[in-house]
Amino acid sequence: MRNFVPVLDLGWLLLESKDTPNHVGALMIFDLPAKAGSDYLRDLTAYLRSGENLVSPWNLRLSDGALARVWPMLESCSKADMEYHVRRHGLPRPGGERELGELVSRLHSTPLDLRRPMWECHLIEGLDRKQFALFLKIHHALVDGVAGMRIIQSTLSSKADERRAPPWCYVGAAGKRHKTKIATRTSSPASRESRRGLVFKSIANLYPAFFPRVRRSESLVTAFAAPRSILNGRITVQRRLSTQRFPLSRFRRIAEKAGVSVNDAVLAMCGGGLRRLLAEAGELPERKSLIACIPVSVRQENEMTVGTAISFGLADLATNEADPLRRIERVHASTKALKNQIGALPRTTVGAFTLAVMGPFLIQHASGLAGRMRPMFNLVVSNVPGPQQDLFLFGARLDAMYPASVLYHGQALNITCLRYLDDLNFGFTAWRDALPHVHRIAVYCGEALLDLERELGLVPK
Amino acid sequence: MRNFVPVLDLGWLLLESKDTPNHVGALMIFDLPAKAGSDYLRDLTAYLRSGENLVSPWNLRLSDGALARVWPMLESCSKADMEYHVRRHGLPRPGGERELGELVSRLHSTPLDLRRPMWECHLIEGLDRKQFALFLKIHHALVDGVAGMRIIQSTLSSKADERRAPPWCYVGAAGKRHKTKIATRTSSPASRESRRGLVFKSIANLYPAFFPRVRRSESLVTAFAAPRSILNGRITVQRRLSTQRFPLSRFRRIAEKAGVSVNDAVLAMCGGGLRRLLAEAGELPERKSLIACIPVSVRQENEMTVGTAISFGLADLATNEADPLRRIERVHASTKALKNQIGALPRTTVGAFTLAVMGPFLIQHASGLAGRMRPMFNLVVSNVPGPQQDLFLFGARLDAMYPASVLYHGQALNITCLRYLDDLNFGFTAWRDALPHVHRIAVYCGEALLDLERELGLVPK
Repeated sequence: MRNFVPVLDLGWLLLESKDTPNHVGALMIFDLPAKAGSDYLRDLTAYLRSGENLVSPWNLRLSDGALARVWPMLESCSKADMEYHVRRHGLPRPGGERELGELVSRLHSTPLDLRRPMWECHLIEGLDRKQFALFLKIHHALVDGVAGMRIIQSTLSSKADERRAPPWCYVGAAGKRHKTKIATRTSSPASRESRRGLVFKSIANLYPAFFPRVRRSESLVTAFAAPRSILNGRITVQRRLSTQRFPLSRFRRIAEKAGVSVNDAVLAMCGGGLRRLLAEAGELPERKSLIACIPVSVRQENEMTVGTAISFGLADLATNEADPLRRIERVHASTKALKNQIGALPRTTVGAFTLAVMGPFLIQHASGLAGRMRPMFNLVVSNVPGPQQDLFLFGARLDAMYPASVLYHGQALNITCLRYLDDLNFGFTAWRDALPHVHRIAVYCGEALLDLERELGLVPK
Repeated sequence: MRNFVPVLDLGWLLLESKDTPNHVGALMIFDLPAKAGSDYLRDLTAYLRSGENLVSPWNLRLSDGALARVWPMLESCSKADMEYHVRRHGLPRPGGERELGELVSRLHSTPLDLRRPMWECHLIEGLDRKQFALFLKIHHALVDGVAGMRIIQSTLSSKADERRAPPWCYVGAAGKRHKTKIATRTSSPASRESRRGLVFKSIANLYPAFFPRVRRSESLVTAFAAPRSILNGRITVQRRLSTQRFPLSRFRRIAEKAGVSVNDAVLAMCGGGLRRLLAEAGELPERKSLIACIPVSVRQENEMTVGTAISFGLADLATNEADPLRRIERVHASTKALKNQIGALPRTTVGAFTLAVMGPFLIQHASGLAGRMRPMFNLVVSNVPGPQQDLFLFGARLDAMYPASVLYHGQALNITCLRYLDDLNFGFTAWRDALPHVHRIAVYCGEALLDLERELGLVPK
């Protein structure tokens, strides 16, 4: 039963290459239910593999029909080889973060099979501390980063004892399917029109962010201020995912004491971690600082930019600054200048924002210039909205959730954080060969956070 | 330090595609040493990851230089990211054959990264019965099936207490490097010349095997006698490896009682297993039998063809025959006719034999016809020489070793067996989507073997 769906977000499929597989991932850590018997994980596997009718976007695959050779098309299929999509893994001993990190890095390095529904669910046992993990991969053509996290969250239940159809078959309380970025036949021409309008508006919004007619502030970072760095060459397929989890309160205290936003504290921490990582490899640009591309919210200053980013811009990470306090000041000055710059822009949606990013990417990749020219920025530091309530799967409580992002040529590192309850969970997605021990960025960020706290007198030196 | 090596066996690199990754594998099961402490596997990992200077073929990767864009080239590198090449895995519980099979199938489905030394070593723990497993992948451009098994064997020691450099750095007792199929600069023009001569001779030898001028026997299978079958279409990358281990004595008793060769008994078993597999899927060709491509030895009749196959030919598997005894008779008649046919051909080497197979493959694949035209045969049933003495790795005894083969378009199933000590170890490599439950071929072959024994009165009915 074929049901062709034209790909509105064609770009995400065109960007797929053997070096840049285009899926996002979420690593979820669950507590085993207290009453779980020895058969719990076997039963969970059976549950995840059950269900007859896959719903969108879990039922979408690349069509291999004749038409699809001319123009990539998606088609829906209600059944799939569930043993293929839902897989079990064990960890070698001792089943700690290192072993989990190695496995998930490997899983994230493997492209999805686009001729099957474009997702995989990996159930991982053998973790210490009575936990298990789930690593979910889904293609970027089906969901964008923000919607992706929403859809992944919607696979979970807010009640510990709720039993419902497995995520891929769950139609939802009101009988509605998940909203995805794939336009279906039922979408009206009018809604498509307005969507297209949003795209153009968003692209228009980018212009002043990158090329301001008047440089309103010394601190505003403009396009091509970024130095060449080891993070901005061509990449290959191997990924390394490392994770860190911090209480949000630590960033809040830093923000309060330093008179900056929580987001500034996050960026300053990333700058500190990157400085050490690159310096140890002898690859730190001395003269210029690394520049991050960040989503920007125009809501009140101290709020995290969650779900309402209306544009994006460039921020100074001050990696050429040794002093943590001067670094956070510079970060703050640059994000403040950026907010002033784009504060007057009209609001558009996050979905349109994501689409707007596509244009430059496609041009760079189609021309083969990505990773070969001077970078507009050195890395993306982003955040995606996370769940603000306890979530459950098959009775198991979600303890933490980390995002795994997509990399492209010219972008060997991505830092994305996700707030879940009172924690900020960081996923550091890196090209494995970018530099030796690139996964140490997670540890170095933790140390940079502590440095900030020490310098601000929040913890003893 | 680059040391370019022209690829004599260029074909194996050209055959690499995203649907047909071109590596062979060996699944080795080891007994944990009796005195192994809890750190044994950690120490084994460290041992496998140690060593500074990789030796051939473990040091060869695809060159990405400008020249290599025109003509694929290999280059050697003495160092590699050993954490990448040597990886640890755990099995989910209960750690039985099913869990091991799922993991190894997945590992065999992932292409090698050709820009690194073209091998991977996967150490698998969590097996029941105090064992662990090693799955070794190596690219077909570096070793052919037979030499591959030899090189894999040479990574092991014949002494339990020997401690030597890890396989990838082991230079050998006499200080000589492993012989590989890659011609190095040191090979003399004369030896290259004679090698080339062998190739042409081998190809010439194929001609009478497939297109005999005089059909000497009714039982001789000639080219294009094979039916179209579900095993002979285009394939994709997902593999399923299943394994079976039988005492050689069972085949010997059948061969003796039926007056056939051990090889005939193996083929008759495969025919029986295939008949059931295809019949259950409603895909059994009724009129014609499946035809296997087999290596042929001209040594004495009852000997297994190990290491001295001088040519290959087509054998009737009699899958359209319900009676096991009539099936083994037909198999025997066809292999006997084949041996008479090619018995007078000059001996060449096994290496040249493998090269000779390349021509037709390349033409089929370059033209895109493979898997789209009527097959010359339905599957390869092959055997590779295995070790005839106990072998050890880091003090652990090798209990069993199974081959994992390469598939191509038009070849969705490969059956290869390997003799180790007194067992025949079968590896069934299949395209996952060839037909439902394709991995059951392993079980059905076991049942077909029992059927033969019952019909011959070797075991009670």
